[in-house]
Formats: sequence, structure tokens, C-alpha cells
Amino acid sequence: MARIAPLSGFPEWLPAQRAVELHVLDTLRETFELHGFASLETRSVEPLSQLLRKGEIDKEVYVVRRLHAEDDGSTDPDTLGLHFDLTVPFARYVLQHGGHLSFPFKRYQIQRSWRGERPQDGRFREFVQADVDVVGVDTLPRHYEVDLPLVMVEALRALDVGEVRMRVNDRRVVEALVRGLGLTDVPAVLAAVDKLAKIGPEAVGRLLVERAGASQQQAAAVLEVAGVTGTDLSVVATAAARLGAGSPELDAALPDLQHLLDAAGQVAPGVVVADLAVVRGLDYYTGSVYETELVGHEDLGSVCSGGRYDDLVSEGSTRHPGVGLSIGVSRLVSRLLRDGSVAATRPTPTAVLVAVTAEEARSRSDAVARTLRARGIPTDTAPTAAKFGRQIKHADRNGIPFVFFPGDGEDDLLGQAKDIRSGEQVDADARTWSPPEADRRVRVVRTEA
Amino acid sequence: MARIAPLSGFPEWLPAQRAVELHVLDTLRETFELHGFASLETRSVEPLSQLLRKGEIDKEVYVVRRLHAEDDGSTDPDTLGLHFDLTVPFARYVLQHGGHLSFPFKRYQIQRSWRGERPQDGRFREFVQADVDVVGVDTLPRHYEVDLPLVMVEALRALDVGEVRMRVNDRRVVEALVRGLGLTDVPAVLAAVDKLAKIGPEAVGRLLVERAGASQQQAAAVLEVAGVTGTDLSVVATAAARLGAGSPELDAALPDLQHLLDAAGQVAPGVVVADLAVVRGLDYYTGSVYETELVGHEDLGSVCSGGRYDDLVSEGSTRHPGVGLSIGVSRLVSRLLRDGSVAATRPTPTAVLVAVTAEEARSRSDAVARTLRARGIPTDTAPTAAKFGRQIKHADRNGIPFVFFPGDGEDDLLGQAKDIRSGEQVDADARTWSPPEADRRVRVVRTEA
Repeated sequence: MARIAPLSGFPEWLPAQRAVELHVLDTLRETFELHGFASLETRSVEPLSQLLRKGEIDKEVYVVRRLHAEDDGSTDPDTLGLHFDLTVPFARYVLQHGGHLSFPFKRYQIQRSWRGERPQDGRFREFVQADVDVVGVDTLPRHYEVDLPLVMVEALRALDVGEVRMRVNDRRVVEALVRGLGLTDVPAVLAAVDKLAKIGPEAVGRLLVERAGASQQQAAAVLEVAGVTGTDLSVVATAAARLGAGSPELDAALPDLQHLLDAAGQVAPGVVVADLAVVRGLDYYTGSVYETELVGHEDLGSVCSGGRYDDLVSEGSTRHPGVGLSIGVSRLVSRLLRDGSVAATRPTPTAVLVAVTAEEARSRSDAVARTLRARGIPTDTAPTAAKFGRQIKHADRNGIPFVFFPGDGEDDLLGQAKDIRSGEQVDADARTWSPPEADRRVRVVRTEA
Repeated sequence: MARIAPLSGFPEWLPAQRAVELHVLDTLRETFELHGFASLETRSVEPLSQLLRKGEIDKEVYVVRRLHAEDDGSTDPDTLGLHFDLTVPFARYVLQHGGHLSFPFKRYQIQRSWRGERPQDGRFREFVQADVDVVGVDTLPRHYEVDLPLVMVEALRALDVGEVRMRVNDRRVVEALVRGLGLTDVPAVLAAVDKLAKIGPEAVGRLLVERAGASQQQAAAVLEVAGVTGTDLSVVATAAARLGAGSPELDAALPDLQHLLDAAGQVAPGVVVADLAVVRGLDYYTGSVYETELVGHEDLGSVCSGGRYDDLVSEGSTRHPGVGLSIGVSRLVSRLLRDGSVAATRPTPTAVLVAVTAEEARSRSDAVARTLRARGIPTDTAPTAAKFGRQIKHADRNGIPFVFFPGDGEDDLLGQAKDIRSGEQVDADARTWSPPEADRRVRVVRTEA
């Protein structure tokens, strides 16, 4: 065991930290299932040819090979790579298993992904994501573009991680405006606008002129429109009219985005706002797009993103349009832990430690433990029949709130239970005694850090 | 999307199958946590130098490299591989994070592993394992050799997968007998005995003579002892005395194994039996060893194995002895699914589908759905405002037992609920109506296949 150094970008949690992550995963799952998403997992590997289809992220893919496989080069189409997100494998899953699925098909998927990029704060080489997607066949009703972001808002609020802000947009709105302004190279405009938060309006203006063929006036108009935020889109229509950028396409798309804002305003006031600069770099989105920040942790980047896509999944004449969002669980959890804003009440599930009077009497303690467990109380027995003081110390070190001392009478299950925090000790029958509800299971609580 | 063929050895489940796997994982977790094991996960990769320490499985390791990393050959000590079990990464975790752990430390770990071996029925290249281990510092009380296998027996019984049989042995017993019979090459004897089930006693006898330096008489004695099974070990002492193989070491080790059998007999009669031919090929076990079969599915091999190890984890003068067992979740689930002996009650979590009368009235249906979800009832809304017959068909196709029809009165939450299996339809208030408890959540039930 010579090399035990941590690997940069491959996070691991201590037990109390893992309890926080587990709480996050449980809460997400509960929310997703309440909304009717079925659980799925996919294999961790895909053929390299699938993973490299988009081109732009090829540097990040991890190739996987058996140690003793004959190495005939990475051009082998059967070479496997670790998936870098859950969308590509889900798309492949839908095509492969579509005959066994009922559409529109809603699934959630909570799984690890891998990217070989340079590790940074909140950016890992191995990380957990939690995705929800709905996919249809040929068509998919627009209401899912309202439903799915609201599921994620509900999930993030259930996590109680502090204030979140989801910034939404519709690529159709932006595209209509760009064309309305007389610009034709839409991808170049979107690529420039996508950099707004990073490089600022001046630099984006230059990009629009240099790469998207915009005049100074057109660039200024794009920047004005991209600056629109809020929950009332009438300003967009007004600005478009003033700039001469109105169009039937814009009139068709704006109400859908407004509907999302209105519906979100009812369910979670103030959480979802339009931001016309949100365009998402990936080119497969064709309608709504979403990004979500933890308020006060904007430096972390988006913790929940996604959008509508029409052409990600298609084969021959069958098209599977979809809407999906992905929560960066590792990113979120790493910040919660670094920040110290949440904590698990203890690092072990154990609520009760049953003391052992003597090693020969261990079966008495085992009987008590069995009885408590059968009643749903996580229970452990003391490692050794040490002095009670040391057994209590073992409980204390592990954050176990109660120690049960078996008695020495005829009935194995009668003894005393001690709350080691208060020191209070009471007669207890393992068949009926319980720790308070709040102590039975590990809880994750907000701390005033 | 050209290549969508399944990859042999990389199993994926359909939604209803995944529901079975999820039930297995939930049940294991619940049992492990009731016994005070803390959840942990480790990163998926380890330095190749760690993974190859044991030598015997080097052919099976998957090497992981960034696609564009400079390839300076696999001898680079920093080259990473996917872990092939959860024991090696846990050992490394204990050394790396030991300063933050409290010993004896009990953890469970449910995670994927990868082995590049030839896929067979129940043997995969990517698979999920569920491990429990307890590790101490320098010493570890023997009672954990009784506790941990019983946790796994309890977990397997909670899964309700049919009869299981755990075969147990103690390497100290076998070693004492081997030495008592005058044989000195203990590893060679164990390696031969390990093959008993596969190649039969005659061939093992030859191996003992040819490779372990045994006389014909010694080989026969080994085979006699290896043939002992049952729950009463007095036959071992008797046989040892008759064969002249008694020793203080044997006298010391036999009672521990008998104690395990007795304790198991109390908790789960008939499940745990001694089998002196069980020695487990891996050389790091130093005490109890365990293997578990599904009765009627012995061809599947062991679904839960492990043992006591004293030297797996050590660094300098610090030793971490442990006891651990591992359930092959993918192996188990794949057989349950193939066998058809268990099934999920439906492929989706949704218990209630709220019908949509008209697309303009979708917000009424959303309000009903929100109210039901707030009461813990998994609910979806109909994809479109199609004719009710088609909406009911959508529910039926997804195994959703109830359809809620919103009314058209002033109160959005009043309507009717229809059990689409019986056709029964009743007035229902979304604030108070519930599907029967058995329909609220997906259940996994035994089928009479």
C-alpha cells in the first residue's frame, strides 16, 4: 500500500459527508418519483464513436481498454469510453430499448460520469449527476418545457440548500430576434452571446461584428435584447418593435416562454426568471433552455441545466424529441460541504449502542439489539466488553446518542437506556423503548455557518 | 446513432426490471443501516500499481486513459484502472482517511465494479456489488466473524429471493488439520481443495499428491476432512483424533466455528452450515470464510462471499484486520429476472394519472396532481388532452392503476377517481382521496413462475 495519495478531481467523502450526499440523492429520488419519473441506469461505457459524435469534447473522454487487449489503436470503432454525461447514453438506450418503452417516457437517472478535464473547485473528473428527461415519439407537447424545470425547482427547494435562481430562455425567441435584426449566422450570434457573462458586453460586441457579420448597430441591438431579464416579457415585444425585429416567429415563441414564467411564478415565486443571454453552448437545444445558480454561490456556475431538444435522438424516420435537465450533484454537495452550511447529525446510522457487560454475556446484548432493529431502530453492539466508561466513549466518538445497558435479570430485554448527551438514564424495555423520533435516523440539518 | 447494439457483459435493465434491482438495493441498504454500517462510496479508479498487487487477476483489469493523453506505456505508475472489487479501494480508503475514522469502523458500499473477463450467465464485465466490512486497528474481536455473515443472511432473507444456504469454514481449522496430517505446503493443499466442487475428489486427490507432496494416505485423509458438512463439528474432532491430526491449534479454532454455527442456528435455523471444503481461493483470508448459494440455483455460483482477513490493509506498523462479505447484486438480480420469480407491480412510480379535459384546462389537472403529490402520492398528468379512452389507455400501458378526472365545478380539486382495473369510479377530493396503500408505491412481489 505505497500510493495512497488522493487523486485530484476524484472526490471521496468521509462518512458524515457521505450522509449529506445520500440525503441529497434520497430527496432528489423522492421528488422525481412523486412526479412519475422511472428510475434507470445505463452502462458506464459507450463506443468511442458515439461519445465523439459531437466533436467538441473529444479531449475529455476517458478511453477504457482491457490491460492485455491487443492495442490496434484508438480508431477501432469498438473501443469503449466512459460516458461524460447521462444524455448520450440515455439517447442510445431509448433507441436500443424503444420497443419496450411507452412514450412519452419519463425517466430519472442518478449516476457517475467522467471527464478528463482539469479539476477545479466544483469541477471534477468523476462526478455524480441526477437527470430527468421526458422523450416522445415524433412529437412532444410543449407543456413538458414547463413541467420539467418546475420538477427541478421543487427538487432543489426540497434540498433546502438556500435560495436558487433558475434563468430560462427559449432558443426560438432568440433565433427569431436575431433573424428579425437581419442577422443570418445564428450559431455565431449564439456562440458570442453565450460568452456574455464571461467576457462582458464590449468583447461580445466585437465578436458579433468580427465573427457573426453584424454591423455596430446590429451588435448593439443584440446586446440590448440579450440584456433582458425578468418575469414580464412584454419588454421584449416592445424592444423588438422599436428595433424593427418583430416577426411571426417571435410572436409564436414569446407566449410559451411567458407561460413558463407565469406557471413558475405560481408554484415558486421569484425563483424562475427569464434571461435572454442564456443560450447554452451545446447546439442540440431547440426550444427552452435552463440554467440554475445557488444564490450567493454564483461562482460555482450552474448546478442544474438543460433544455428542449428535437433531434438528439433519431434513427431513420423515427425522431425522439425531449426535454431534460441535469443536476450536478457532486458540484452541489462539494459546495455544501466546503461551505459548512449543512451537516449530518452523526456519521453513522446507529441510534443506539447496546453495551456488553461481559464477553460471555454478549448474546444478551445481541438479543436487545435484535429486538430494537426489528422495530426499525438502527442499533449496534459494543465492540468489546470494556469498562462502561469506554463503551460510552465509543458511542460518543461515533455520535451515537443512546447507550442501552442490558440488565442482569431473567428477562434479557430489560435494562436501562442512557442519553449520553444529557446523561439522563431511564429503565427501558427493548420491546417498547424508543429513542425520540428525531434521533432514530441520521438527519441533515442546516447549520448557521 | 449507428451503433446501438448491446455490449455483451454490460447489462442494462428495462424500467420494470430496474424497479426490481432498486428494491434489492433498498432492502440491502435498510438492513445494513439497521446494523449500524455507514454508507460509503469510493472513486471508481485506482492506480494500476494498486490493482495489480495481487497479480492473479491482472488480465481482467480495465485501464483508463484520457483520449489525448501522451501514451508513455502502461508501466507508468500513475496509470489508472477501474476497480475490480470494492475491497481494494476500501483498503486504500481506510489508509488514506484513517485519521478521520473511528475504529472498529463499519461501512457498507454499494457500487459498480469492472472486470474484463469473458461474460457468462451471471458473470458480467460491469456489475454492482454490495459489501459490508468492519475493520479495526491492530486487533478485531472474533465476534464480528459471527455478526457479519448473519447481517448478510438477514439481508438475503429480507430480499425474499427463496432459500439461501451459507457455507462457512475457518481457514485456521483447515490449516490446523493439514498440518496435523503432516503436510507443510498449506497453500498447495488449499488450492487443491478449492477445486473440489469443480473437478471432483479423484482429481483433487491427484493434485494433493502431485503438487502438495501428500502421500496417498494423506490425500485420502484431506479428502475425508474436506467432506465434512453440517452444523455439529464434533465429527471434526473425532475424525482428527482418529487420523492422528489433533492439535492445540485445532482445539483453539474449532469452538469459534461451532459458535458461529450455533449463533446462526438461533437466528436463522438451517441456513448456515459448515463445509470444510470451502477455503476461498484468495490468499488473504485468515479466519472464517463464507460462500452463499441460492438453493435451486447452485449453478449461479456464490452470491455472497467473504471472510476474515488480518493483513489486507496495513502500512508500516499499523495493521487493519477486518471481516467482510460481498453480495453480487447484478448476479442475483439477473437470475431473479431471468427466472421470472419476482416482478415489480408496475414499471413507473406513478400511482395516479390525472386526466386533462382540455389543454386550456391543464392547470386544473396540475393543481390536482400537486395536491396528491404533496400527500406523498406519485402522480402524473396526461400527456395530451386526448379523448378519455386514450388517456385511460395511456395509464393502462404504463401499469398506472388509477385515473383522476378533474370536475368542472368551482373547486379544482373535486373530481372522480377510477380504478382502471376494476372499472370502479368514485367521487374524489384530491385533498383527501388516496389509492389503497398497496397501490401507492411500486412493490416487488414473488410470482409463481
